[in-house]
Amino acid sequence: MKLATLKSGGRDGRLVVVSRDLTAMTDAGEIAPTLQAAIDDWAVCGPKLEALAESLEHGSVPSERFHEHDALSPLPRAYQWADGSAYVNHVELVRKARGAEMPESFWTDPLMYQGGSDSFLAPRDPIRLGDEAWGIDMEGELAVIVDDVPMGASREVAAGRIRLLMLVNDVSLRGLIPAELGKGFGFFQSKPSSAFSPVAVTPDELGDKWDGGKVHLPLCVDYNGKPFGRANAGIDMTFDFPTLVAHAAKTRPLSAGTIIGSGTVSNKLDGEPGKPIAEGGVGYSCLAEIRMVETINTGAPKTPFMSFGDTVRIEMLDDKHHSVFGAIEQVVEKYEG
Amino acid sequence: MKLATLKSGGRDGRLVVVSRDLTAMTDAGEIAPTLQAAIDDWAVCGPKLEALAESLEHGSVPSERFHEHDALSPLPRAYQWADGSAYVNHVELVRKARGAEMPESFWTDPLMYQGGSDSFLAPRDPIRLGDEAWGIDMEGELAVIVDDVPMGASREVAAGRIRLLMLVNDVSLRGLIPAELGKGFGFFQSKPSSAFSPVAVTPDELGDKWDGGKVHLPLCVDYNGKPFGRANAGIDMTFDFPTLVAHAAKTRPLSAGTIIGSGTVSNKLDGEPGKPIAEGGVGYSCLAEIRMVETINTGAPKTPFMSFGDTVRIEMLDDKHHSVFGAIEQVVEKYEG
Repeated sequence: MKLATLKSGGRDGRLVVVSRDLTAMTDAGEIAPTLQAAIDDWAVCGPKLEALAESLEHGSVPSERFHEHDALSPLPRAYQWADGSAYVNHVELVRKARGAEMPESFWTDPLMYQGGSDSFLAPRDPIRLGDEAWGIDMEGELAVIVDDVPMGASREVAAGRIRLLMLVNDVSLRGLIPAELGKGFGFFQSKPSSAFSPVAVTPDELGDKWDGGKVHLPLCVDYNGKPFGRANAGIDMTFDFPTLVAHAAKTRPLSAGTIIGSGTVSNKLDGEPGKPIAEGGVGYSCLAEIRMVETINTGAPKTPFMSFGDTVRIEMLDDKHHSVFGAIEQVVEKYEG
Repeated sequence: MKLATLKSGGRDGRLVVVSRDLTAMTDAGEIAPTLQAAIDDWAVCGPKLEALAESLEHGSVPSERFHEHDALSPLPRAYQWADGSAYVNHVELVRKARGAEMPESFWTDPLMYQGGSDSFLAPRDPIRLGDEAWGIDMEGELAVIVDDVPMGASREVAAGRIRLLMLVNDVSLRGLIPAELGKGFGFFQSKPSSAFSPVAVTPDELGDKWDGGKVHLPLCVDYNGKPFGRANAGIDMTFDFPTLVAHAAKTRPLSAGTIIGSGTVSNKLDGEPGKPIAEGGVGYSCLAEIRMVETINTGAPKTPFMSFGDTVRIEMLDDKHHSVFGAIEQVVEKYEG
């Protein structure tokens, strides 16, 4: 089942079921007005939405054309967005880029930050920011939406509470990160609003590419219209989603609709940091990483952070080259308050 | 106007207007079913709720007895909870307690962390946690609920978006903080669910004790039934609420219903860390602070963190000794998953 939230409607948009091929949709308002309402009562709404999705595939319900640019993020605002950093290769490279050592414990104890969840961007919204000097970067990631998770849940319990998957562009302001992390309280101003894919999908939509913990497909990140990253989300993910969810729930319950992110998808190649696609590598899901590899290879970063006018596209294709989640596609623009 | 959220109802409870003396309430469901719904459309709902509150004071609408223990936190779950650390005295002491230096910039650049907002405790709920060894502490604070705040809002614009005030118990797990902050991503497991006061009040309820930026009243913190803290929230607040709100909005808009906290209320005395109430001081709003003062005075902390069975009460009284927000009153209990 694939679900989207249309811009028509209030702050939380309007829930629709979308066809597997992303071309058609049907209104789900009789089951639940919004995705949050559906996830609040998933035991009841989930099966009804599945039945509606089945009817949509069979053409037995009225449908309209689905346009990805009409969609908000599936949860336009959420009660929780917590982002892991499960691809430890990325963490190691970013830390190196900051001149910081990475403790060995990072390979066994998940990193996770509490993100802002009140004002997500739509997947085709521009990324409006006040200053290019903030070091604007994209981060291509996967995320899950969970049902209620009890405090102290095991990895196994957590696994059973994953309801939906999405893609994320976790926008980061690299120039603000060192000073902010230096204050010791984590990210705040350095993490502006994130955007999620046009549709959220149930795990079964991924078939055998979802093993209950990871998604075994490349994440396609294009930068200014050119292939930039094709890292496989199933490779080098040190902590899988159930592990991340259990980590988040250690000292408090997670409410239905909580979004848990993977962190930037990142692959090593033969134990070395990934190469650019043009050189036969799988590339990168964020600019910080290519800048680090450039620093290792040439002594200095060459690729600048994003400027106003730069575009990023984040998508995931299945074995038949069909888009699973639709595409996040955003241009960076100057915010004119 | 004073607003509360009753436990009857769904995940977001049921909105009621409460009388100034906290004894009576009247249903506000015809105006807005929940506080989030009211704040989502405050231009319409705010004046209607004010009119209903006026009618309640005059006895011209049906009313029932209000019991604080029937209340959830005013927003039982919120789209954002960001907590400042505006009483820099507290930050300095806590950092000293951790053996960490405090940079001078902390006096000019607000500290703020992104908190979990999906599962707040009710004001009379027990604080259930898995392990006393986590170093359980309370933190008595004030918080504001804001309307939509545009990205890049000035302090003046931010000031005009403050709609309601509450008290907070920002529960902290001191034993988990050093390792978690050492990872560089801020608090996560070390900040379990917080609790807010039984009612949220509009700023005018504070009369001249609210100057548009700070609340000039003592925060009464009782620990195990004894006075523990009487620090004045208007003293030593280095960053006032509009400054904190503007800080939060620097790189992203804040959605209506965002909660911004003050951080632990803390006063110096004649330039020295505060003294216990028994010694003529104003005491403390958290245990970490008395432990630090004990360390300064005797070389080691004497007061342990909270054990199962320990209780905390957080309240604020006006000049006539009437409770403004009702009382947060919680016992620490063992969580039996």
